[in-house]
Amino acid sequence: MNNHKSEKKLTIFALGGVGEIGKNMYAVQYANDIIVIDCGSKFPDEELLGIDIIVPDITYLIENKDKVRALLITHGHEDHIGGLPYILKQLSMPVYASRLTMGLIEGKLKEAGLLGSTERHLIHADSELKLGSMKATFFKTNHSIPDSLGVVLDTPEGVVVHTGDFKFDQTPVGDHADIHRMAEIGRRGVLALLSESTNAERPGFTPSERIVGANFIDAFRKAERRVIVSTFASNVYRLQQVVDAAAATGRKLAIIGRSMVNMITIASELGYLDIPDGMLIETNEVNRYADNQVVILCTGSQGEPMSALTRMARSNHRQVEILEGDTVIISATPIPGNERSIGRTVDELFRLGANVIYGSGTQTGMHVSGHGSQEELKLMLQLMAPKYFIPIHGEYRMQLHHKKLAEAVGVQPGNTFIVDNGEIVEIVHGDARKSGKVPAGNTYIDGLGIGDVGNIVLRDRKHLSQDGILVVVVTISKQDKTIKSGPDIISRGFVYVRESEGLLEEAGRIVTRTITKSISDNVNQWTTLKSNVKDALGRFLYEQTKRKPMILPIIMEV
Amino acid sequence: MNNHKSEKKLTIFALGGVGEIGKNMYAVQYANDIIVIDCGSKFPDEELLGIDIIVPDITYLIENKDKVRALLITHGHEDHIGGLPYILKQLSMPVYASRLTMGLIEGKLKEAGLLGSTERHLIHADSELKLGSMKATFFKTNHSIPDSLGVVLDTPEGVVVHTGDFKFDQTPVGDHADIHRMAEIGRRGVLALLSESTNAERPGFTPSERIVGANFIDAFRKAERRVIVSTFASNVYRLQQVVDAAAATGRKLAIIGRSMVNMITIASELGYLDIPDGMLIETNEVNRYADNQVVILCTGSQGEPMSALTRMARSNHRQVEILEGDTVIISATPIPGNERSIGRTVDELFRLGANVIYGSGTQTGMHVSGHGSQEELKLMLQLMAPKYFIPIHGEYRMQLHHKKLAEAVGVQPGNTFIVDNGEIVEIVHGDARKSGKVPAGNTYIDGLGIGDVGNIVLRDRKHLSQDGILVVVVTISKQDKTIKSGPDIISRGFVYVRESEGLLEEAGRIVTRTITKSISDNVNQWTTLKSNVKDALGRFLYEQTKRKPMILPIIMEV
Repeated sequence: MNNHKSEKKLTIFALGGVGEIGKNMYAVQYANDIIVIDCGSKFPDEELLGIDIIVPDITYLIENKDKVRALLITHGHEDHIGGLPYILKQLSMPVYASRLTMGLIEGKLKEAGLLGSTERHLIHADSELKLGSMKATFFKTNHSIPDSLGVVLDTPEGVVVHTGDFKFDQTPVGDHADIHRMAEIGRRGVLALLSESTNAERPGFTPSERIVGANFIDAFRKAERRVIVSTFASNVYRLQQVVDAAAATGRKLAIIGRSMVNMITIASELGYLDIPDGMLIETNEVNRYADNQVVILCTGSQGEPMSALTRMARSNHRQVEILEGDTVIISATPIPGNERSIGRTVDELFRLGANVIYGSGTQTGMHVSGHGSQEELKLMLQLMAPKYFIPIHGEYRMQLHHKKLAEAVGVQPGNTFIVDNGEIVEIVHGDARKSGKVPAGNTYIDGLGIGDVGNIVLRDRKHLSQDGILVVVVTISKQDKTIKSGPDIISRGFVYVRESEGLLEEAGRIVTRTITKSISDNVNQWTTLKSNVKDALGRFLYEQTKRKPMILPIIMEV
Repeated sequence: MNNHKSEKKLTIFALGGVGEIGKNMYAVQYANDIIVIDCGSKFPDEELLGIDIIVPDITYLIENKDKVRALLITHGHEDHIGGLPYILKQLSMPVYASRLTMGLIEGKLKEAGLLGSTERHLIHADSELKLGSMKATFFKTNHSIPDSLGVVLDTPEGVVVHTGDFKFDQTPVGDHADIHRMAEIGRRGVLALLSESTNAERPGFTPSERIVGANFIDAFRKAERRVIVSTFASNVYRLQQVVDAAAATGRKLAIIGRSMVNMITIASELGYLDIPDGMLIETNEVNRYADNQVVILCTGSQGEPMSALTRMARSNHRQVEILEGDTVIISATPIPGNERSIGRTVDELFRLGANVIYGSGTQTGMHVSGHGSQEELKLMLQLMAPKYFIPIHGEYRMQLHHKKLAEAVGVQPGNTFIVDNGEIVEIVHGDARKSGKVPAGNTYIDGLGIGDVGNIVLRDRKHLSQDGILVVVVTISKQDKTIKSGPDIISRGFVYVRESEGLLEEAGRIVTRTITKSISDNVNQWTTLKSNVKDALGRFLYEQTKRKPMILPIIMEV
């Protein structure tokens, strides 16, 4: 089925990351060489009951495992590295990543027991990799995590650029993006640009990370008592600005939340975070300092149920309680879907007497996006001046907006390809067109299971979740087909049993009647008998309750 | 327990509507007279599995049913009338509402079979009701549904005002709010004001409904093909503006969606909506007209799964398909929690080639709120100049903001009461204080059941939804305690059975072993035996899968 792949042509496709936030994984193939870029995961929507996480379906890579030359990682966010522990269990690939990114990856691999078995290569902005018939180089970008890279692939057909996630921050907290190298890449000619679309609906420029720092200092100064800042652990620049504002206002710093402690440890060890000696204090030391000498930095900016901030808000954190007059800064913008849980956390904090600074970053000044807005996306398009354009990452509407931006900047209308996961863009002799599909989709992770929970299991969970289950057990004699024991009816998640005795007794009588009648009608197949019980009981329960629990008739023969 | 109630004092409390959007129900009691205001419902969060709707707990009213003089309804939105079909089943009360509101209520009561048994009284802005020791009068407000009223209760202790929902629209599409009467009420003296808090976090003034009409006309003109407008069915002013824009641009109008058809029928019959003769066309006539002569008005502005717009977006609407070049206007702002489903609908519409106008009303000009912003809330506070203030409706943080607005306008800091559902504000001889609680909370509706699904059932549904269920059935001989049949293991929502035969076989062996060993250890209690099976099997399954399905051991004796 994939015999066309060994031809001398360039193909570009996504195994995840198109038409949805998260789960990013792109691939570029030339003849017998495949380069994979990123390996993200995403959290499931509520309807995927019991699913822990979603990763890309890599059937195509497994079928072509001899061709996979490298897995390049652009940066250390979950939607770019979160799939590694699951994907590498299915297929081992050499992983290339910059220092901080690799530090985060190694933590994940260690936990998954994959550290020893995974080939790992540290790269940096000046690395040059020979990967089969292709060459990979990189360029520095600005994003809300240090060490973010764009990828340049020199292929026999021409240059393919993958931007990773980026903004253009003219006053970054860390390094500048390497705009000169980008210009140079564009000057030499780009065949195809894959550029990220997250903020393609947003006009203008995304504000600089640095404005948040100034606002932190103001807020820390104004706060008469303790300051509690909640943000994404991965935003090391933001963490640095919390540290700097604490230093500027003479406050000590306590860190709460597993992922926050973890990030600060890794980032400090690798030199990405600079915390003055003596500033860090243990959580249990907080009460030894005056209220206006303390900052607490914690997780929970998205209202996650088990996070530090949520537990503090619900007054069930082991060590820290919110005090009247505390200032809580939520340094993040709600991710769609999290508004209600964040709202609940904010309400609880207010109830405890805290002064809460919350809402969108534009209003509060306490958060800026790590993704470039329309003017920055256009700037990237200008710099790269690609012949072909493939908007990546984000929902369909964002990619569609990005297409319009590209056309405004000069990409020929027919030369932009919005592709679904799996759809192939093929480029031969400089001509690009859509050409078939590779297998692609969602692989559900549930516990240790990778992809073993599918539609049938999910449909059953959905059914069980709505109206519960009734198990009906009856023992029937093999010889004379009479009921020897039962029917016993056990229900879970259907009605409160103690208050529904009458209903369940009547249900039992209906089962007995149905079985007796079926047997006297000479029904011999257990399946038919079961289906008769299901029908009669289902009808009765729906009439009585307007609910449709799952009904599981079990017949034991003795 | 409620013997203090017959004393000559005024009490004000909420049975729903504090600290949450929706489910609004307030009550004012003087001695032996209770007046109830509104009877709302709200939709459950996702974690309330299988629950259809939530209404207030009216235990207090049932216990004091002889004292309930009236249920006054301020306007016809679901969060003010949605509870009626369930509440009136528990307790019949005389219902008072204005014409449009009563029209909507009667539709609900008819469906619930309660129309005949419910005492109903039509009121209007000039009605005056003698209700025991209290007198009720009303004042017109502006809100996103016609016939909205504020309530004035003359009590022996003083005047209590309940605003209902309101904005101050200086150029309304319907009637003006009666600002003169409000001024008059305030001039005569208000003891306590209950005013709505929905937009208390929003600075400034809410824009006039009329600007949406102007933007509709612009958008309809620009649209080269069909226009599809999706909005809340209850916003009759908005519907009128769609009609007017259709008239102004020479387009016919088709209506899709049950609640939209329903609303347009009632509003037209009662004279709240004016549709020119010959403008309405049937859905199946749409194709007979040129694309630029058609407007389709439909439900689905919140991405509701079964709504007209969602079905069109998914290309599974029976009668209408989205065509390339259609303009779709979503004339609404996402309600928190609906962002993702709206996003999916918008994506699908773009995929079908539609031009979609979506996002917040501030950006698109296609929607304005029906709730007053901070300046309007202050205006109401100024007009009423109450001695005591109780912010109502909305989340805690909104009520807290509203309290600050009240203090800025001149209400004494100690004179604002933010109350939880059930908390009583008692006023005696002009002095107000919090004083105890009446029972209050959520009553869950599931099918025909009113309040019969509680925490145990919900906990089971949650468990079932995450990892499914394993039913283990075994038949044991009464005489010799040997296994006569089984164990049979049936699973639902746990693993895909066909691919997990080995796992389930091993599970069966573990059950047999556990039962045999327990019996040879002289375990005689079935409960102990069951619990041994649960433990052993649970441990095994967790080791193998890291999942914890519900395990239901069933032992049949023969």
